[in-house]
Amino acid sequence: MERNILLTIEYDGTGFHGWQRQPEVRTVQGVLEEALSRVCATPITIDGVSRTDAGVHALGQRATFSGDFGIPADRIPIAVNGLLSGTDREGDLRIIESRQVPSGFHARFDAKGKKYRYMIRNEENMAVFLRNYRYQVSETLDMDAMRTAASYIIGEHDFACFQAAGGTPRETTVRTVTSLDIFQEGEPGARDISIEIAGDGFLYNMVRIITGTLVEVGRGKIAPEQMINILDSHDRGTAGHTAPPQGLYLVEVYY
Amino acid sequence: MERNILLTIEYDGTGFHGWQRQPEVRTVQGVLEEALSRVCATPITIDGVSRTDAGVHALGQRATFSGDFGIPADRIPIAVNGLLSGTDREGDLRIIESRQVPSGFHARFDAKGKKYRYMIRNEENMAVFLRNYRYQVSETLDMDAMRTAASYIIGEHDFACFQAAGGTPRETTVRTVTSLDIFQEGEPGARDISIEIAGDGFLYNMVRIITGTLVEVGRGKIAPEQMINILDSHDRGTAGHTAPPQGLYLVEVYY
Repeated sequence: MERNILLTIEYDGTGFHGWQRQPEVRTVQGVLEEALSRVCATPITIDGVSRTDAGVHALGQRATFSGDFGIPADRIPIAVNGLLSGTDREGDLRIIESRQVPSGFHARFDAKGKKYRYMIRNEENMAVFLRNYRYQVSETLDMDAMRTAASYIIGEHDFACFQAAGGTPRETTVRTVTSLDIFQEGEPGARDISIEIAGDGFLYNMVRIITGTLVEVGRGKIAPEQMINILDSHDRGTAGHTAPPQGLYLVEVYY
Repeated sequence: MERNILLTIEYDGTGFHGWQRQPEVRTVQGVLEEALSRVCATPITIDGVSRTDAGVHALGQRATFSGDFGIPADRIPIAVNGLLSGTDREGDLRIIESRQVPSGFHARFDAKGKKYRYMIRNEENMAVFLRNYRYQVSETLDMDAMRTAASYIIGEHDFACFQAAGGTPRETTVRTVTSLDIFQEGEPGARDISIEIAGDGFLYNMVRIITGTLVEVGRGKIAPEQMINILDSHDRGTAGHTAPPQGLYLVEVYY
């Protein structure tokens, strides 16, 4: 009998060429499909919610797959994680949860929203250990200015200005950002700044371009109020740079 | 004119087969000597203080080298770090400081002591991002018992019980541990435990075996007072397991 399974997946994006299966290179989808096909003893194809780019991490990626196989849903994590732990990148990908869902349920199409976190290290000489997990920014960022700028982004807007070329074509560039919070830990001179952004959907590279733009606000290169004009322009050229992939984490998918 | 240079070096040990130069594999000494030889335009051999094993990290490794070359000492970090940033492991090794020292000064022979930190993650399901930087221990550790056990280690002792086979032969296994502090951050259920240990010198794998023994004390497998008997035995077989390399950091060298 055909069953439909929903997975929750955590990975360190450093060693992957992104989510999406591609020939010859190591991708999250590729590694998972190979392991699941062995564990389920039948060829498995999975659909993930977020096609994360190379270097982007996930704490709670979701994916569905279906098929006729024997293994109970709750045994899949231990079986797959056991297989993966024998590889050269031991431990950079892990299924956290697996459960059976009604047939027809689809991880991506049924998602109501997502939350991402972008982590900046605001420090002049960042320790080498953080290089794959933070975006290093040397100049002390003005948190108040960044928070003011962020307030203009919350709500329903046409976010064309924050969309990079090269993603899947979309019917509309209107999205709703339901929250955008900026947290900091540590003292000026060495601090972690997290930008947490939740919404009903995100355009290609949208979180990274929003982050790059907020960093330029923090540096004083863009005035916080200019965010209104940037949004109104619908023009990628008016927004800031694209922050690098290694600071980005897919945190949660909402259903 | 021959000059003698003292370097301070930081590295993520994950991508290295340890400090010591070996043919065919990537080591910290090998990568540094190659880059320094290019920057100094003459073959350079360096002497490091601690021959860290594969996977072991350093915040403040020290090394000396000498030769007749043109580059000013304080330009060496930027030149070497620039060369290294073009490699596939971009950013996992960095010279933090470089300064000229009197001829005859030797990073290792003139060191008065060293400080190491060992980082344990006391949590049942550790995030994948920490796998190369912490030793995961699932069972909640008894910090009081560990601190009592640690108190017996401080001072001058014959530490033969904490020496692994395979290191450089030593004249004596007597060493002085000047401090051993155990810190913790976070709540039971998910916490970082750091063991900081300073002393005039360390035997092969000594910090990792002390850590493994303290973990067994924390688990209730070894009574804190048994540390006295372990030290008196001079027998590696009486001590605990060797904690894995990825939790170990060389923090500082004292002169």
